Amino acid sequence: MKNIRTDLAIEARELYSTDGGQIPGVTTENEEIDGINIDRVHVLSSIGEQRIGKPVGNYVTLESMYIRERDPEFEEKLSFRLSQEIRNLVSIDKNTSVLIVGLGNWNITPDSLGPKVVDRIMVTRHLLELIPDKVDERVHSVCAISPGVLGITGIETGEIIRGVIEKIRPDVVIAIDALASRRTSRIGVTIQLADTGISPGSGIGNKRMALTKETLGADTIAIGVPTVVYAHTIGRDTIKLIHDSNIQIGSDINFMSEEQLDAMLNQILSENMGDLVVTPKDVDIMIDNIAGIIADGINLAVHDNITLDEIRTFLH
Amino acid sequence: MKNIRTDLAIEARELYSTDGGQIPGVTTENEEIDGINIDRVHVLSSIGEQRIGKPVGNYVTLESMYIRERDPEFEEKLSFRLSQEIRNLVSIDKNTSVLIVGLGNWNITPDSLGPKVVDRIMVTRHLLELIPDKVDERVHSVCAISPGVLGITGIETGEIIRGVIEKIRPDVVIAIDALASRRTSRIGVTIQLADTGISPGSGIGNKRMALTKETLGADTIAIGVPTVVYAHTIGRDTIKLIHDSNIQIGSDINFMSEEQLDAMLNQILSENMGDLVVTPKDVDIMIDNIAGIIADGINLAVHDNITLDEIRTFLH
Amino acid sequence: MKNIRTDLAIEARELYSTDGGQIPGVTTENEEIDGINIDRVHVLSSIGEQRIGKPVGNYVTLESMYIRERDPEFEEKLSFRLSQEIRNLVSIDKNTSVLIVGLGNWNITPDSLGPKVVDRIMVTRHLLELIPDKVDERVHSVCAISPGVLGITGIETGEIIRGVIEKIRPDVVIAIDALASRRTSRIGVTIQLADTGISPGSGIGNKRMALTKETLGADTIAIGVPTVVYAHTIGRDTIKLIHDSNIQIGSDINFMSEEQLDAMLNQILSENMGDLVVTPKDVDIMIDNIAGIIADGINLAVHDNITLDEIRTFLH
Amino acid sequence: MKNIRTDLAIEARELYSTDGGQIPGVTTENEEIDGINIDRVHVLSSIGEQRIGKPVGNYVTLESMYIRERDPEFEEKLSFRLSQEIRNLVSIDKNTSVLIVGLGNWNITPDSLGPKVVDRIMVTRHLLELIPDKVDERVHSVCAISPGVLGITGIETGEIIRGVIEKIRPDVVIAIDALASRRTSRIGVTIQLADTGISPGSGIGNKRMALTKETLGADTIAIGVPTVVYAHTIGRDTIKLIHDSNIQIGSDINFMSEEQLDAMLNQILSENMGDLVVTPKDVDIMIDNIAGIIADGINLAVHDNITLDEIRTFLH
Repeated sequence: MKNIRTDLAIEARELYSTDGGQIPGVTTENEEIDGINIDRVHVLSSIGEQRIGKPVGNYVTLESMYIRERDPEFEEKLSFRLSQEIRNLVSIDKNTSVLIVGLGNWNITPDSLGPKVVDRIMVTRHLLELIPDKVDERVHSVCAISPGVLGITGIETGEIIRGVIEKIRPDVVIAIDALASRRTSRIGVTIQLADTGISPGSGIGNKRMALTKETLGADTIAIGVPTVVYAHTIGRDTIKLIHDSNIQIGSDINFMSEEQLDAMLNQILSENMGDLVVTPKDVDIMIDNIAGIIADGINLAVHDNITLDEIRTFLH
Repeated sequence: MKNIRTDLAIEARELYSTDGGQIPGVTTENEEIDGINIDRVHVLSSIGEQRIGKPVGNYVTLESMYIRERDPEFEEKLSFRLSQEIRNLVSIDKNTSVLIVGLGNWNITPDSLGPKVVDRIMVTRHLLELIPDKVDERVHSVCAISPGVLGITGIETGEIIRGVIEKIRPDVVIAIDALASRRTSRIGVTIQLADTGISPGSGIGNKRMALTKETLGADTIAIGVPTVVYAHTIGRDTIKLIHDSNIQIGSDINFMSEEQLDAMLNQILSENMGDLVVTPKDVDIMIDNIAGIIADGINLAVHDNITLDEIRTFLH
Repeated sequence: MKNIRTDLAIEARELYSTDGGQIPGVTTENEEIDGINIDRVHVLSSIGEQRIGKPVGNYVTLESMYIRERDPEFEEKLSFRLSQEIRNLVSIDKNTSVLIVGLGNWNITPDSLGPKVVDRIMVTRHLLELIPDKVDERVHSVCAISPGVLGITGIETGEIIRGVIEKIRPDVVIAIDALASRRTSRIGVTIQLADTGISPGSGIGNKRMALTKETLGADTIAIGVPTVVYAHTIGRDTIKLIHDSNIQIGSDINFMSEEQLDAMLNQILSENMGDLVVTPKDVDIMIDNIAGIIADGINLAVHDNITLDEIRTFLH
Repeated sequence: MKNIRTDLAIEARELYSTDGGQIPGVTTENEEIDGINIDRVHVLSSIGEQRIGKPVGNYVTLESMYIRERDPEFEEKLSFRLSQEIRNLVSIDKNTSVLIVGLGNWNITPDSLGPKVVDRIMVTRHLLELIPDKVDERVHSVCAISPGVLGITGIETGEIIRGVIEKIRPDVVIAIDALASRRTSRIGVTIQLADTGISPGSGIGNKRMALTKETLGADTIAIGVPTVVYAHTIGRDTIKLIHDSNIQIGSDINFMSEEQLDAMLNQILSENMGDLVVTPKDVDIMIDNIAGIIADGINLAVHDNITLDEIRTFLH
């Protein structure tokens, strides 16, 4: 297992499949629907786990440049697609209770994706408990929390989530988090789903307390969107663009492997750029937009045959 | 026990001590310091509990019209006084761990007092766990959450709090909530402390799940500030002002008891004004200001000999 | 001319037409469409002006309790109705340039209606100047400012507006402001339009600098919504409800005229409740909702045959 | 005159003084006070103007890595230094009226610096007009506006500013804007002052309407802080770091001039990274902090012998 870390399975696959070929213990599929590139990575065994640096499980990446266009029609298609992929990963029926967890820091715009999604979730658990007769039968039990981050609460986020889960015992947990990417071009246009558990605080920082189906007693889906890159990454992307171009800028750089380039850049950049992490200038709009797409996708997935118009009316 | 409900012990006392005299099972003290009127009500027994409609325990009310002046010097005095009263109600030493709970809905300005206080709490629990050697010994373990409200999360707020408390086992819990008052003049100028437990959702709504020392295994302090009145209350205050004035507006109204007035007003107003609840026009500024005063008071109380300047630097 | 002040022509009419009959120099019409009560007051002459305390011009009030239901379908009907009434008051064609002015203080929620409407206006003037060929011909030239209030800028709001108007010379000015009402029941459910000019700072405070067609060289429409009442007003409403009820609370109060009641209440309440101005507890939601309705109404009125879906896509 | 554009005179100087030597028509000074590097560039003549690509006038740059530490004591020193430099550039006495203009878009965090500064300005003009006897004589006439941006208002920002200035005729105009930098390391740690006029919309976009002493009839000071870089710039910084390092990555790149590097990078990066502009992940905190420092510096400069405590009390 190599030591280059990435939050995205699609990037792990790119990294570890240097010749573009197959990785033992890992299968992949790719399709394009409605202008959305869908990439599915299945890590099947501990061999695959070792090779790709990601736990056994299923990883689905939805990616589309059209997200940047902010076209409402395309966004609806993407929400529908997301809802389908959630349903593929986890079984939801009328007796399923779902907890949505919005990870991240609401005071830091690029880290506020999770809480912003929670703000738009159609929360119904209390209605089904208090006034069940008045609730449409297509509506399932959904509740939601934004637990904050360690620096705000002083409490490990995983502890808060576990404490709440032990009280309310949901069948399914869906957690949303902002991630860091290794490619500048993925910022704000990529949505990753995984059924391998939640790692609060791992998105941008260290892995602290992994919450899995085993520890939580609930199916867990993690939805992540890269919203930041290390300045470092932009530097590396630059070199890679030069590297891939036809311009001969130097024999050495042109023949370096990605790993060698990383090693060199780490040496030069770490002391000069420190750990500068950047996000697009229009981050407020970007986060708002993706939060809406993901919330709609979740709302469509966790209830039965609800329309986007019904969701809007409910949330109004 | 009478059926007129109020969140404030000082109002309960006024209501049930029609002749201004003593109530069995209840003792009271009153002093004025630095322009702050401090009223202490001690409900000593089940007899007192029945008579005043409040559980056995201690209730302290700090009240001052100067709060409206927004004078930073006075506000510091009030924060110090508040910290003293907290320390009088609960024992805090260097081994005490404290959880601050900001009750209320952050989307509704007059109900956002609790979350706004939490935003200004000097949270230290994670520092004492991760880097204990770098933390000043006057600093104690403090953590904080804003659990939201039922309509936002779909989960009883009490369940969230209990779930978190069972994980982190604090010695002291301090909860802050916005209340409704029976006197227009108390809005934004009264701070009540009580050591009788927390009732999330009771401030402006129904009592749902009382959290007490017995159920939580921690000393609990509730801090409440009236931020709203029923339009109804303003109507009643008007009649009372007329009633108390020397103007003879009618023989009947001048001789009605407060209870008779209430009954009459309920009859007339409930169908006409419904349950309209109002708050001052400058509610944004009012909440912001009081949140600062209360957060400072708590920060001073839960640590040892910390100065307000040190708190500001920490939070900056 | 009497000296009881109100921002709403409908209230002025109620006040000055004690017998419900006609007022010289004033004509009125009333109709109900789609559950919206539409009241039109036309002040025709200086006689009418003197009698009703409002300048010569047209005043239209849209009022509906359904606003409180937050039903998207009803809100669309109301926006359409509002757009019609705007078009009735002012002529708009493809060469008309419109300036929208959002009056009020964005830091005080109940006074932030104007700026919140401006946030949702489909601003197009710069597009028609920079890329006219790419703009749909149904789209007219619209620009928008929120000039702030005296306490924030240090500048008379009227000066800022006049300065901007002298530079850009719009044909029509539409200003939106939050008002105070004399009836608690009107808060948040009444929209008044008038073509008699704008009075920045008059909504909740003193009339400072009236901006009229004569001084601005542009047709002016003022749109106002009562968002606050004096606590005083609630007191008066209470007495009036008692007064109108069959309950005999006192011979004097039951036989007082509204004016005598006001005089009495002024005397008693002014020193006790001061100038306390209140707003509903859910003011954040109320303002947000009405701002959306009014912005939609304006967007529909100032362009030609634009649909609400097109507006949403433009603003997304 | 070369065609590489930068908002910062310090960067223009670096660019055009390849050998570190003197530029004709330009004088420079540099000193370090309290850990703040102060760089003064004086463009003296049209020769200097041509060589450095900046109009005749004075440019002062305050730069310090300590800004990132968020130390309140250092921030006060920086505010004092800023106030001194403002006073060096423009004459202010008790009869001077000042208009503060907060340029930029309040909806885009890295562009919201100007409006955030305006929020903290001690605005007094209305007090001096309405209640002059109650205003301390050290307090001068200050007013402030945040005119928005073209995309929000549909009006050229320069038109709004000119319209307002023609009404209120201030003696001095101080405008604050967020800028783009050519060096990643300058983000959030550099404050530039210039007395050469204001160019609304030039910071991050095209120069549209320059407002100078001649056109405004007032001394103008522009205060700018780089808050974003082109992703491009980070790429270039990376190459430059490699270039400056001792590592031999290729003969060609190591011997390229900065201009050749730029040309190469433009070719490769523009089509691959487009015009991606980035800002640090913690942009919310960064902007908030610098806005406070600049507002304090301006408040100290425009009044006489006011203390920071008095400013805090006034703004509270």
